[in-house]
Amino acid sequence: MKILVINCGSSSLKYQLINMEDETCLAQGLIERIGSEGSVLTQKVQGREKYIVKQIMQDHKDAIKLVLSTLIDGTNGVIKSVDEISAVGHRVVHGGEYYSKSVLIDEKVMKALEDCSKLAPLHNPPNIIGINSCKALMPSTPMVAVFDTAFHQNMPEHAYIYALPYELYEEHKIRKYGFHGTSHKYVSQVAAEMISKDIKDLKIISCHLGNGASIAAIKGGKSIDTSMGFTPLAGLAMGTRSGDIDPSIITFLMEELSLSSEELADLLNKKSGVLGISGISSDFRDLWDVAKNNKRAQLALDVFHYEVKKFICSYAGALGGVDCIIFTAGVGENSAKAREACCTGLEFLGVKIDSEKNNVAGIAAEISTSDSTVKVFVIPTNEELMIARDTKEVVSL
Amino acid sequence: MKILVINCGSSSLKYQLINMEDETCLAQGLIERIGSEGSVLTQKVQGREKYIVKQIMQDHKDAIKLVLSTLIDGTNGVIKSVDEISAVGHRVVHGGEYYSKSVLIDEKVMKALEDCSKLAPLHNPPNIIGINSCKALMPSTPMVAVFDTAFHQNMPEHAYIYALPYELYEEHKIRKYGFHGTSHKYVSQVAAEMISKDIKDLKIISCHLGNGASIAAIKGGKSIDTSMGFTPLAGLAMGTRSGDIDPSIITFLMEELSLSSEELADLLNKKSGVLGISGISSDFRDLWDVAKNNKRAQLALDVFHYEVKKFICSYAGALGGVDCIIFTAGVGENSAKAREACCTGLEFLGVKIDSEKNNVAGIAAEISTSDSTVKVFVIPTNEELMIARDTKEVVSL
Repeated sequence: MKILVINCGSSSLKYQLINMEDETCLAQGLIERIGSEGSVLTQKVQGREKYIVKQIMQDHKDAIKLVLSTLIDGTNGVIKSVDEISAVGHRVVHGGEYYSKSVLIDEKVMKALEDCSKLAPLHNPPNIIGINSCKALMPSTPMVAVFDTAFHQNMPEHAYIYALPYELYEEHKIRKYGFHGTSHKYVSQVAAEMISKDIKDLKIISCHLGNGASIAAIKGGKSIDTSMGFTPLAGLAMGTRSGDIDPSIITFLMEELSLSSEELADLLNKKSGVLGISGISSDFRDLWDVAKNNKRAQLALDVFHYEVKKFICSYAGALGGVDCIIFTAGVGENSAKAREACCTGLEFLGVKIDSEKNNVAGIAAEISTSDSTVKVFVIPTNEELMIARDTKEVVSL
Repeated sequence: MKILVINCGSSSLKYQLINMEDETCLAQGLIERIGSEGSVLTQKVQGREKYIVKQIMQDHKDAIKLVLSTLIDGTNGVIKSVDEISAVGHRVVHGGEYYSKSVLIDEKVMKALEDCSKLAPLHNPPNIIGINSCKALMPSTPMVAVFDTAFHQNMPEHAYIYALPYELYEEHKIRKYGFHGTSHKYVSQVAAEMISKDIKDLKIISCHLGNGASIAAIKGGKSIDTSMGFTPLAGLAMGTRSGDIDPSIITFLMEELSLSSEELADLLNKKSGVLGISGISSDFRDLWDVAKNNKRAQLALDVFHYEVKKFICSYAGALGGVDCIIFTAGVGENSAKAREACCTGLEFLGVKIDSEKNNVAGIAAEISTSDSTVKVFVIPTNEELMIARDTKEVVSL
């Protein structure tokens, strides 16, 4: 069984074709600048040169047409016919309160996705366009929606309700949803395998630290709390996002600087985070490069590590203890220094990092000492594989 | 030495006259409705009936005049002459970055307080009016300003900087300040005495849980982090305040409901918290009364306790462990059920509550079991005494 995984952004599209027999990636690709000049597809296949196609793509349908023709291309493709694709798994950012698991796409699902667009106006609309384009080109292939929010939909009410007038939840669906669910689910399952325990018996804290970052508290394989909230702005300071701040700061800025809601959203989402503190970059590698001689770059790193540490501890409280901490995504997988900084001072929790073992990047590894009562892991995330697994499960039902 | 402690609100004034020889309160009183019809003073003296004076008070100067005349009143007073008052200690909400300790008030200080009014527009102006009124009536008595923010002014930079453009800190002083400092300082000192240890060697988490609520992480007698932020809105859900929420909720509300900054501030400060969730009351006692049969009242309590628990754990992380947890203020001092709920599931931290010992209200007591590695205390706060102690220290220099 071969499954195509599609992740549509507003002007970009990522895809992977995965062979479910051995869960290998047959081909992966990225399309950029859809609808603009210079639109381009880049495909990678293990053991081959990168294959680049520069071609005008007016819209997502054009883009998916090119994905399919590239996959079956005689020289550069990996399959002979589109019929070899058994199902398509679509990453969808927001499933609102409708979906706590992945779902076969039908008319009712499409309507729910439209409903959720208000909650994710930047993300759900391109996801919907991607699904519709695929349906048009592969009308008889089953499509599955895999939601970033689904894994967190079983959080208890006391974790997802904000201390706001309850009507805002009832009428406007303002609550904590959480994101990165596919990643948190995947790495927590891998961690359980790595320590050969049933995930049902484990208390896991998963730290997805990339340019966007979130932490989840996972009990018995289920998310019981997570740092992102109503939107992916909440929680930790990130590359360019503020994370949690005193809400009064926003009303203060409205009054002092007469900022509109759009300008505020832009400031909080695109000009804040470690970029805002450092004034230098949203890329943590750039900050490490100059931190020694640049106070504000060091401060940005310090704030980030301190917040991660506090969230880890707060989720230990939510879980009533912790068996296992996972670091994943760009920073989590690749920065030994970041992992060490986040865990410094957590000896009281039973966390001891082995600096030698921690000297890894991009591979799954245990990085805690043998006498650390909390096991700490680096686990590369693989959202595409998780989407493919969910898709397989849904279409096999 | 007798010290008068003054706490001025916009239309109210609280006072205490404290004998510093034995730190007893000679008289305490409250004036309400200053500048409105029905303004009234109520004074309590140990062992006497309440003394009530209904009198027109146009402004705070009228109010303080009445305080002084009541204190020296032949029948209802407690001193013979105003000259017996050696110094006046004023509670001031915001000292900005100017003051990390209490200070003798002079022209320079008054200017700094004016500067800080922008940061606390509801609180500093009445504080300033109170000081000026006292100075006019007692021109040769030394006055001391004791700040709610001062105890937190030594927080490390990574704890007080928000992940926002750094210019907002430099130009608009947007940072975490923290409040309730006088209370956190007082109870942490009492806790150190109760376990006969030098506060310099202790890691303390102080939970000031009243209608306003904040938690502080105190290392070696110094606050290193606290849950309130730029304003007293941040951190925990409170009686009517939201505490921390996803900042995007505010821009969402601006767009969806076209709320102005004033309406938003009103919603977040006065209509949220446990009142917002329950729809019933901001008073925790009312919620406990109906929680059994009212899902939303129970939910409001659950959210509050869950947030307190998470902050306790996150501050254990900030401190690198915890020796002692303190509960104080209205809820913290009086609600055994709230204390138990906040500590449930913290056995992994070494916290064990003794339900019998916990069955106390309004008195200082240890409530943890003898084998609890973390000592847990109820300690009634006494901000007035702390202000008087600081005032004595400053005028004795």
